[in-house]
Amino acid sequence: MQTPWEYRYAHRSQKSGSSVIRELLKLTEQPDIISFAGGLPAPEIFPVNEFRDACNYVLDHFGPQALQYSTSEGYIPLREMIARHTARYSVEVTTDNILITSGSQQALDFIGRLFINRGDYIVTESPTYLGALQAWNSYGAQYIPVRTDEDGMIVDELEEALRIGPKFIYILPNFQNPSGSTLSLERRKKLIDMADKYGVPIIEDDPYGQLRYEGEHIPSVVALDSEYRGCNGNGTHYTGNVIYLSTFSKLLAPGLRLAWVIAPPEVIRKLVMIKQAADLHSSSFNQYIAYEVGKGGFIDEHVKVIRAVYKERRDVMLEMMDELFPREVTWRKPKGGMFLWGILPEGMDAAEILKHAVERKVAFVPGGAFHPRGGNDNTMRINFSYSSPETIREGVTRLATTLKELIREAV
Amino acid sequence: MQTPWEYRYAHRSQKSGSSVIRELLKLTEQPDIISFAGGLPAPEIFPVNEFRDACNYVLDHFGPQALQYSTSEGYIPLREMIARHTARYSVEVTTDNILITSGSQQALDFIGRLFINRGDYIVTESPTYLGALQAWNSYGAQYIPVRTDEDGMIVDELEEALRIGPKFIYILPNFQNPSGSTLSLERRKKLIDMADKYGVPIIEDDPYGQLRYEGEHIPSVVALDSEYRGCNGNGTHYTGNVIYLSTFSKLLAPGLRLAWVIAPPEVIRKLVMIKQAADLHSSSFNQYIAYEVGKGGFIDEHVKVIRAVYKERRDVMLEMMDELFPREVTWRKPKGGMFLWGILPEGMDAAEILKHAVERKVAFVPGGAFHPRGGNDNTMRINFSYSSPETIREGVTRLATTLKELIREAV
Repeated sequence: MQTPWEYRYAHRSQKSGSSVIRELLKLTEQPDIISFAGGLPAPEIFPVNEFRDACNYVLDHFGPQALQYSTSEGYIPLREMIARHTARYSVEVTTDNILITSGSQQALDFIGRLFINRGDYIVTESPTYLGALQAWNSYGAQYIPVRTDEDGMIVDELEEALRIGPKFIYILPNFQNPSGSTLSLERRKKLIDMADKYGVPIIEDDPYGQLRYEGEHIPSVVALDSEYRGCNGNGTHYTGNVIYLSTFSKLLAPGLRLAWVIAPPEVIRKLVMIKQAADLHSSSFNQYIAYEVGKGGFIDEHVKVIRAVYKERRDVMLEMMDELFPREVTWRKPKGGMFLWGILPEGMDAAEILKHAVERKVAFVPGGAFHPRGGNDNTMRINFSYSSPETIREGVTRLATTLKELIREAV
Repeated sequence: MQTPWEYRYAHRSQKSGSSVIRELLKLTEQPDIISFAGGLPAPEIFPVNEFRDACNYVLDHFGPQALQYSTSEGYIPLREMIARHTARYSVEVTTDNILITSGSQQALDFIGRLFINRGDYIVTESPTYLGALQAWNSYGAQYIPVRTDEDGMIVDELEEALRIGPKFIYILPNFQNPSGSTLSLERRKKLIDMADKYGVPIIEDDPYGQLRYEGEHIPSVVALDSEYRGCNGNGTHYTGNVIYLSTFSKLLAPGLRLAWVIAPPEVIRKLVMIKQAADLHSSSFNQYIAYEVGKGGFIDEHVKVIRAVYKERRDVMLEMMDELFPREVTWRKPKGGMFLWGILPEGMDAAEILKHAVERKVAFVPGGAFHPRGGNDNTMRINFSYSSPETIREGVTRLATTLKELIREAV
């Protein structure tokens, strides 16, 4: 008889959130369900033709190199392209500041590996991105959540958190997943100040920064930090206090699994060593393709298309919610990104609502799981990027019916 | 003033081998150096046309799906193709036995994460694959190396190692990297027996299994384990004692970063959770492409081309070494794979030889680093898959001159 495998696993347990919710969310993969649960971009606007041209060009001109092993840092022309793009958003960086990763999820994992000792504290927004918690739980992180409102993390409550001695502050300043809020300029500056005062680095996760549908662009935290330190304008590396993450998943296509980290060169060198041990390098072929698709300025043009499509979907969803949702339910109006944050009356459980919603063939994600220390079960994350306006109309109608029923019962 | 980043890193240090050797090997990237140091496939025989056709087909027919997020387990048709391929080599598996990873390096990392607690012992061959040591060092593994000869691990010395209580046995049975040896059938059977007796699982790493240039195919350890347990022939999952790794890197192209793990379903489920936290999933686009290229039996045809090209290169290298190497140097003749193992007279240091070889514009990897507990500095790994026969002739001539000079000095 064989020793059961379970006796062989390391202590490094994978906390995995509520399996009840996971089972419920599996139901949302049924084709007749309208799912506002995922965090998927709209596949019908992926630039398939540009990818086809790029594949042919790369294979015609660089076939052997693009299909061969390459360096852990990433394809140099792609890193140069990212450096130019970043400079336009006012952070001067060189390729030594940039590592290509297999999606931002991998960057989050590497950051956990580089910084987190079992028991270390991490400051997060509450709610925060679930994937970051999943990545860091396996390194034994503990969390100090700081509350958020429509202007993002309530920075006035940050100092108390920093006095506990956290390893870093994790923040999604633009159109946050899950809450959709955006950190105001004033709070960004205060965040940088406070982080500097306590000597705590900032991890800025910015997948949606370019997907703004109204209002003015707010400089990224890394840009403001660079300014704060007087790094800009001397044509050298960035050497500040922020590690910045962004991705091609929302600008081109997530199926490529390509993202990037911007950090001081000494941090990049450490991350490169981790990358080498973790998967050698990200697909060279995909890096060549991303460069070919992006090199002539296509991404800027394409982002305009994405913005137009998602803005319409957000507006339709907001309109329908205004019209149909019971007045007991409130929500935040996001200025960009892919998610809307719904708040049920205190004491209600969104997981319970989901159970009934799935019966009516509509789904969302209950917000409790996004809170590192639990609670807030009366919240819900609703995605508007994936479904067409017609589907959104129908889905919100179904959800509104469910909500009305259950709130009437509760009252 | 900013807190230096180094005070923030976790204890989880990245041991990184000798930086002297790393610096030397960097020199081998100069274009005028003939490098037998890398472990690269021959890029001139990558099936570029088949990739071009596959890219066009995939983008024409499945563009939006192939560019979208997908499941952590991997693309089902690709896993089905791997299951069929595996069944032909006599292990019955289902898609529940298979996880797609971003190269085998990622599988090694995940195995470390799943099994290794700091201080755990791992049994390896000596020498063994450097990438595995790099992956597992960061989890705090310790190693019990077992000696090898031309027939692979000397299994008679395994029992002593197993009595120490290792977490698993790591073995590359076919044309091992770095030594080129192949584990004999008799030893495979004894290995399975012994592993079963002590309740220790086996990790079988098999990137080169199909690249045999002479002799008969020997069944993989997972196949023999399946037979041993009577798992075969009942049309169900594999549920034995082996985790098997293989890859498309040597069969199609490493630039895709696609490999696979075969393991009991309960282990696959654990690895899927790890995959989800580590990078969500491997590139869906590349998985579609690998499936399109491979589905009609192309890989079998292509492997014949690879075998013919690499066999010629191995033969040319062996011939030249026979002719030119000083008689004090010996080497193993590999029956397949990509590497040849050279042995210098006891007391000589291959790193010293490399220093002089680089001056003569030829390079290899000193063998010491492949030994988990050091020593064996008189060994060298020589790659024959990457250079053309003409380049091999010139490179071996240069290396022979270096060797003769230094051995004459030493004597």
